[in-house]
Amino acid sequence: MGAGPGDPGLLTLKGKRCLEEAEVVIYDYLVDPRILTYVHPKAELFYVGKRGGGEAVSQEEINSLLLDKASAGKVVVRLKGGDPFLFGRGGEEAEAIVAAGIEFEVVPGVTSAIAVPAYAGIPLTHRDYTSSVAIVTGHKEVWETSPRLNWDRLATACGTLVFLMGTRQLRQNMARLIHHDLSAETPVALVRWGTKAEQEVLEGTVGSIADLAEARCFEPPAVVVVGEVVRLRQRLKWFEKKPLFGRRVVITQAREQASVFAGLLEQQGAEAIYFPTVEIVPPDEEVPAYRAVHPQANAEELHAWLREGKIDLVTFTSSSAVRHFVAMLGDGEVLALLDQALVGCVGPVTANTASSFGLRVDIQPEEHTIPAFVEAIVEHFSNRQSPSTQR
Amino acid sequence: MGAGPGDPGLLTLKGKRCLEEAEVVIYDYLVDPRILTYVHPKAELFYVGKRGGGEAVSQEEINSLLLDKASAGKVVVRLKGGDPFLFGRGGEEAEAIVAAGIEFEVVPGVTSAIAVPAYAGIPLTHRDYTSSVAIVTGHKEVWETSPRLNWDRLATACGTLVFLMGTRQLRQNMARLIHHDLSAETPVALVRWGTKAEQEVLEGTVGSIADLAEARCFEPPAVVVVGEVVRLRQRLKWFEKKPLFGRRVVITQAREQASVFAGLLEQQGAEAIYFPTVEIVPPDEEVPAYRAVHPQANAEELHAWLREGKIDLVTFTSSSAVRHFVAMLGDGEVLALLDQALVGCVGPVTANTASSFGLRVDIQPEEHTIPAFVEAIVEHFSNRQSPSTQR
Repeated sequence: MGAGPGDPGLLTLKGKRCLEEAEVVIYDYLVDPRILTYVHPKAELFYVGKRGGGEAVSQEEINSLLLDKASAGKVVVRLKGGDPFLFGRGGEEAEAIVAAGIEFEVVPGVTSAIAVPAYAGIPLTHRDYTSSVAIVTGHKEVWETSPRLNWDRLATACGTLVFLMGTRQLRQNMARLIHHDLSAETPVALVRWGTKAEQEVLEGTVGSIADLAEARCFEPPAVVVVGEVVRLRQRLKWFEKKPLFGRRVVITQAREQASVFAGLLEQQGAEAIYFPTVEIVPPDEEVPAYRAVHPQANAEELHAWLREGKIDLVTFTSSSAVRHFVAMLGDGEVLALLDQALVGCVGPVTANTASSFGLRVDIQPEEHTIPAFVEAIVEHFSNRQSPSTQR
Repeated sequence: MGAGPGDPGLLTLKGKRCLEEAEVVIYDYLVDPRILTYVHPKAELFYVGKRGGGEAVSQEEINSLLLDKASAGKVVVRLKGGDPFLFGRGGEEAEAIVAAGIEFEVVPGVTSAIAVPAYAGIPLTHRDYTSSVAIVTGHKEVWETSPRLNWDRLATACGTLVFLMGTRQLRQNMARLIHHDLSAETPVALVRWGTKAEQEVLEGTVGSIADLAEARCFEPPAVVVVGEVVRLRQRLKWFEKKPLFGRRVVITQAREQASVFAGLLEQQGAEAIYFPTVEIVPPDEEVPAYRAVHPQANAEELHAWLREGKIDLVTFTSSSAVRHFVAMLGDGEVLALLDQALVGCVGPVTANTASSFGLRVDIQPEEHTIPAFVEAIVEHFSNRQSPSTQR
């Protein structure tokens, strides 16, 4: 199953249902952790990610984990970033499953090859520029184990060329394109962490982009788009223009209630981070409440993020949320931790509680509703300069 | 916004939210009508579809409709099959919107270029075969208005070549590939109505596929996949193997209750058709109940579908559903209409009501629950031969 490119809103309805029903979820590095909130708290989660070139878990180990769990009668979801059948090794894994006589189905995802450029304002095709697209992996390892790329034809076959995971081999790949007659003046965009709050776009040409990326220390993961369509970005970029683009906002509501608030924030371009300080757990539930908490935001991770200044705003929608938040992060530390982040409270009672713990309240709407709260947040950030990613 | 390739489960969460919030929805031919069930009953719906070559509504008219509605302050969704930024003219329309000073965002969709092959069991890349894919439109009109395709390089640049809307130009395109040195023995798959109950796959080679398609009167819309990866289909095809693949099942439950039943049927490969015979409408609601009904299944269309033998099964989950169904389709005609379809009833009371109208009850589970009903349906069809599309 494909998890899509990052923005959790790009998960499919079928994918969500599969995650809810899965007993085992085996997932990769590029799967956005927010997607995992749909996984049932009692399901087994296995991380088999590979970072950059290094292999965390070998393909053989992944296959045998898949087969072990499926053979034991479990409903297994193999979750991959983007789409599983475009450079996801989905085909290879499906073959192993079929060989073992196990039933499977494919749940396609929104591919990063199209969606990441789209979030940077770049359509892959356009009547004025091109009616063909080539998509290749930028990973040298893949070319070496699979039939070689025909660089001589690839360079000029299609009007748009997309490299997935194209950062590490960027210089060599651009040189190959020039060597095979693509103009060095052809526009290029590098889109890092596309569709997410961290999205960063670097523009240049086939001739200049490698130097620019080096100068900016542009790290993976990134999608590389080569072609005249890149010019459309100047007019069509939309995601980076949203008032809360790049802002990370912590929501302390109970998970069940948080989606309205999160939805409104996401509409404005923010990345909502669920950190439920109140959780409703039935008495016979064996799992601890923390297990049901958003995987991206257990107390330890939130600690680290706050320390590193990666959080823009922590929001409180009740007094008990404030009290639990302080307890979860530790009374002694919470003030120092919140030094770099703003604090928002939905109303005066919540704000009073926050103040009683010594917290400084930066944002408080006049009307005590979630939409008014979001409006106040948008207004606050619209008057400031750059999001956390650019500090 | 992209609607995905057809299977309504491949709609994104964000896409669903957009449809629910839209005040105006402007949609194309290839948008599956089931997707439109998420549109609010009071929203304005505009169909601007283009069938095959012919243009139903010109691009200028579409643009001016978009601008009119958006300028009037409406929340407008421009809904396209697949993804809007890959041959969807999304870029062109976005330019018109930007030029008018209107804000927009892009909601990528699952592209047919990847998902349709995936539902036919074909991964576009595979380490044993290829690490590059080219995607082109098969429409001559597009090539003529946009820069020409470099057939000489395109033919052999990538290990996999996908033509979207490639049926009408199939013979010419295959000839061009052979002319530019692609082996005539290269495997090809034509996938028609991929991801839907009507999915049909035709396999051949670059040299043979045009004749095969002609002999089978293979009509658009279809995705054409060219490359060695097509060979994987024999092992990896999964969708067509589902016990209810190709079966169309009518659900007469109220819309609010129908999703569990529909979900279970879809898991088994069926296409669930909502035909709510009971609808809960608040008294101050201005729209007639039928407006809220699934657009694919108003009484008139269901009439036609039943007459044409396109429906495999009509299910009843209550006596009142039977009574309303008979009234909606007309007492005098219902028996003749149901001649080619099966009838299923969830329990004996419902079955008695059906019998009292003279209906023959073909499927009735022992246990009177929806899961048992689905099991009985699967069992019934597993013992029969071919679905409606192959009759």
